[in-house]
Amino acid sequence: MPSPTIRRLDVASPVPADIDIANSVEPLPIADIAAELGLRPEHYDLYGKYKAKVLLSVLDELKAQQDGYYVVVGGITPTPLGEGKSTTTVGLCQALGAFLDKKVVTCLRQPSQGPTFGIKGGAAGGGYSQVIPMDEFNLHLTGDIHAITAANNLLAAAIDTRIFHENSQSDKGLFNRLCPANKEGKKHFADVMLRRLTKLGISKTDPNELTPDEIRRFARLDIDPESITWRRVMDVNDRFLRKITIGQGPEEKGMLRETGFDISVASEIMAVLALTTSLADMRERLGRMVIGNSKSGEPITADDLGVGGALTVLMKDAIHPTLMQTLEGTPVLVHAGPFANIAHGNSSIVADKIALKLVGKGGFVVTEAGFGADIGTEKFMDIKCRYSGLVPQCAIIVATIRALKMHGGGPEVVAGKPLDHAYVSENVALVEAGCVNLAKHISNTRSYGVNVVVAINKFASDTEAEMNAVRYAAMAAGAFDAVVCTHHAHGGKGAVELGLAVQRACESQAEPLKFLYPLESSIKEKIESIAKFYGASGVEYSEQAEKQIEMYTKQGFSNLPICMAKTQYSFSHVPSMKGAPTGFVLPIRDVRASIGAGFIYPLVGTMSTMPGLPTRPCFYEIDVDTATGKVMGLS
Amino acid sequence: MPSPTIRRLDVASPVPADIDIANSVEPLPIADIAAELGLRPEHYDLYGKYKAKVLLSVLDELKAQQDGYYVVVGGITPTPLGEGKSTTTVGLCQALGAFLDKKVVTCLRQPSQGPTFGIKGGAAGGGYSQVIPMDEFNLHLTGDIHAITAANNLLAAAIDTRIFHENSQSDKGLFNRLCPANKEGKKHFADVMLRRLTKLGISKTDPNELTPDEIRRFARLDIDPESITWRRVMDVNDRFLRKITIGQGPEEKGMLRETGFDISVASEIMAVLALTTSLADMRERLGRMVIGNSKSGEPITADDLGVGGALTVLMKDAIHPTLMQTLEGTPVLVHAGPFANIAHGNSSIVADKIALKLVGKGGFVVTEAGFGADIGTEKFMDIKCRYSGLVPQCAIIVATIRALKMHGGGPEVVAGKPLDHAYVSENVALVEAGCVNLAKHISNTRSYGVNVVVAINKFASDTEAEMNAVRYAAMAAGAFDAVVCTHHAHGGKGAVELGLAVQRACESQAEPLKFLYPLESSIKEKIESIAKFYGASGVEYSEQAEKQIEMYTKQGFSNLPICMAKTQYSFSHVPSMKGAPTGFVLPIRDVRASIGAGFIYPLVGTMSTMPGLPTRPCFYEIDVDTATGKVMGLS
Repeated sequence: MPSPTIRRLDVASPVPADIDIANSVEPLPIADIAAELGLRPEHYDLYGKYKAKVLLSVLDELKAQQDGYYVVVGGITPTPLGEGKSTTTVGLCQALGAFLDKKVVTCLRQPSQGPTFGIKGGAAGGGYSQVIPMDEFNLHLTGDIHAITAANNLLAAAIDTRIFHENSQSDKGLFNRLCPANKEGKKHFADVMLRRLTKLGISKTDPNELTPDEIRRFARLDIDPESITWRRVMDVNDRFLRKITIGQGPEEKGMLRETGFDISVASEIMAVLALTTSLADMRERLGRMVIGNSKSGEPITADDLGVGGALTVLMKDAIHPTLMQTLEGTPVLVHAGPFANIAHGNSSIVADKIALKLVGKGGFVVTEAGFGADIGTEKFMDIKCRYSGLVPQCAIIVATIRALKMHGGGPEVVAGKPLDHAYVSENVALVEAGCVNLAKHISNTRSYGVNVVVAINKFASDTEAEMNAVRYAAMAAGAFDAVVCTHHAHGGKGAVELGLAVQRACESQAEPLKFLYPLESSIKEKIESIAKFYGASGVEYSEQAEKQIEMYTKQGFSNLPICMAKTQYSFSHVPSMKGAPTGFVLPIRDVRASIGAGFIYPLVGTMSTMPGLPTRPCFYEIDVDTATGKVMGLS
Repeated sequence: MPSPTIRRLDVASPVPADIDIANSVEPLPIADIAAELGLRPEHYDLYGKYKAKVLLSVLDELKAQQDGYYVVVGGITPTPLGEGKSTTTVGLCQALGAFLDKKVVTCLRQPSQGPTFGIKGGAAGGGYSQVIPMDEFNLHLTGDIHAITAANNLLAAAIDTRIFHENSQSDKGLFNRLCPANKEGKKHFADVMLRRLTKLGISKTDPNELTPDEIRRFARLDIDPESITWRRVMDVNDRFLRKITIGQGPEEKGMLRETGFDISVASEIMAVLALTTSLADMRERLGRMVIGNSKSGEPITADDLGVGGALTVLMKDAIHPTLMQTLEGTPVLVHAGPFANIAHGNSSIVADKIALKLVGKGGFVVTEAGFGADIGTEKFMDIKCRYSGLVPQCAIIVATIRALKMHGGGPEVVAGKPLDHAYVSENVALVEAGCVNLAKHISNTRSYGVNVVVAINKFASDTEAEMNAVRYAAMAAGAFDAVVCTHHAHGGKGAVELGLAVQRACESQAEPLKFLYPLESSIKEKIESIAKFYGASGVEYSEQAEKQIEMYTKQGFSNLPICMAKTQYSFSHVPSMKGAPTGFVLPIRDVRASIGAGFIYPLVGTMSTMPGLPTRPCFYEIDVDTATGKVMGLS
């Protein structure tokens, strides 16, 4: 029997604008959706009528519950238009929940607010497969990204201010200020200071007992300004902040420094949120984030600066995932949205864990991985699953005829420009030629030991012959199944077959999860495993990359997983190399690390971490209907 | 009969730390507090269990309801330690609600989050007169300041990006990008563009009909970079952002600009939020905020940049005040927290309006004004009440023996240093001498035609003789009453006499509200009225101030009220001039304007709009107990 929160859609043709569909459906009170999942009011905090934060403590309560099936959605190498991965994720869940009577939870990333006002519109899915209310999904949501911004920038302020105060004070003066005497004349170490003392190998707990040398080592972080990798963030597309000089006020006494802002979702704190497994774990990760080195080459952490606890306080509500709903009334958990290049591009572990318990045995959790499967699914397996201990039963690869034609040699696809004729008229040969890209994603994903289902996201102009070609190629490449779906036009009803295929794939999954590389390998060995996986014949390191690898190894960070920062537009580092290129040498320009989040990220090319606004940003159309309070013009 | 949400406190002596008192009381579900106020679930949005946003639409529903009594809390000229104005505001309400069985709502400003991690602790009152949960009050609350940050910075990004795009494009190219043809080849103006056309006196609505000259005037804002007054903001104490150079990335092509960040609550958008009266009014105010001038001297607004609607979308939830509770279970509305120097330092008009309807006839709304009465109460009357149309029945002036002794000639009071002996032992003569400050505040406040009640916030070392001296001086200066209160030590019970005095003052209030100056006066006449009110013998304008006054007058902004940006530590511009100085000449260094918020603000001295962090910020003590999720170390 379908759940009482399930809603049937009246679909129109042609498909209306996303915002019009979203506004045509009155969302259910989120408390009803929560109740359907078996959540009682003490399990969540409401944020308005249509959003609720599901408290992490639910996990303790459901410990004994068996997990549901765990499904990850990746895609083939996309065109710049995107191939509907989020839409497929939502549509599949609408099918499972509203048509196949399964317990299901969709786990999605929270989109960045900045780009909503720039070029791209929202990220709540599309057509009849959407998360609602779409304006709340795309805007502040429940404040998690704002919390990240606040925490990231508090740490940044702590860094520059510490250097400033160290510059003007003696060791002794610094120490006396850090450990002032209280009213009774007694000095004490704050708890966070004990962490630094432990790191320094000093076991004393009475400030009066430190030797002058210990005082110096404790109080003087001696941060090398040149080594600082921690940047400030803002959830706004503000290109003029990419590179700035700070400290030009007269009170900062000429202590200038060149730095810059990234967009907030690029903060390491976002990656921490996505990879953490508990409040205590988050406290540790935030504390061990490395912001740069001391002049003698020691990594300096947030806890060295005394701010790890305060960052956790700022993030303590953000750790709870946000419950929302699809157009057809199935539940969605939205949580975390790290970059898919400089970070791992997957929604949070805690949301997936809660979801798996909530759906229970026989239920389904469908979670999306960023970019193509070479990046998103790879990082899902080798980073996210490694940290969570969770094992997926099925990996979906979303493909479109459009993207396959591009891989087969079709003309360049450019956002904002009309599509070439090749993409809207039948051309089976072009599709067949492009299936090399799909085949490579299938075999790569299969190598983790997981069943692969290909979802062909059908557009109106795609033909039966083209889709047959894809199905044939997919099966030949080792897919468990390959299914055409029309959820954009029909909602869950259009993804019923996909839902059935996913169910069969999950039920027949037997192999254990095989990671691509063991953590104990060296940084270079791990990079080379991934490069080979892409199809590269080798790896080339810049001098800077070599230096960084040596440094991280020396600092004891070489056992972390690797998070490649590579273009999503090719298996290789060259966006124009479509299909399944081989024989290329992958150049590693630089290597950086997110120690708190827990990965090393080699840079293959240049990654933009702060978008800009075009001449006519989306914001021109965005306004509030002041009579109804409704948002207009969001797309 | 007391309301069922009222809670009796067990008070301990000596008074424990604020956080310990706050944590010792289990807050009631905020839904219970709301129900006591007659609010039904459709009237508010829950944000967790202890906070709710009361929807502005409540005002429409309660239109017919009579307002309660409206009480504003100001203070004498304070010491750097503060004289307990917030604590008195909360304590008075606990007395009215929990001991005098009155319907009462406390209206407070939302504190800035940044300073919570710097030097000062929280701002939720103190002792047994506090708002709880105090961590939620001091941290993200319901995201309003985060929304302000996002909106402020979207506007900032729009400014620099627009200059950038105008620099590289022809009039025609710019116009074509601003009004691109849609799929059917038709161009259209976005609604916000029609606002600019109207401003330019162009009545055409079809983009194809504009002449080349009209195209140029419409598309080219021609912003003078030197004239830009709009700065970026962040809710973090980050002194290194006070003065920065932006645009140093290679893609910004050398378009450098010197600018800076203020702390978020210094944003004009905060002042807009505090002064707006409806969603439609907020839309207009945000749209008409002036960010600088064109090269020909025309003011350029947010709507000229096309972003007024998007700013409103970002602020649409922030317009609803947040309901919380005091330690004794009385309701509190927290909303907006503009600076008290460069802005008007009062909580929001909409919160006060909703509160006045909710308490209804015979009920009480107590709202706090920032700084001393010379600044806070003056701006409450001449700016806030002018925009709201509301009339207070009683103004409270909070005084401490400590501050009065300082005004009487006591030694300097410095935060963080032990108090001089003079402040903790009886010295009636010093108190009597200092009462000139109190008397001046009383007569100033009386001049608005409002009954003045003096609240003597008693400290443990204050003596009966000292307090008698204050009472005598207050009555002689025209106070309606002067009452000793001990709400810090005793909660509402310690402010019962104050509550009764306030009740009598409200019931006997008969005069109409008399503003200090009419809006039609010139900018200089208005400044001079306020200067005289302070005790100045005259005003001196810098060249820059003269120039700005001339410009604002020419631009048509001279009929706005005046918001003096002056030190709170003296009636004059010199912090060390205590008591009630006369004969000084008030120097106006510069004159600026917040056109959207709706005031001109002359700068009397230099105002810091971005605090810094000390060598040992509060954050060292702040952490989460990861077992319970409770915040520790917040003070």
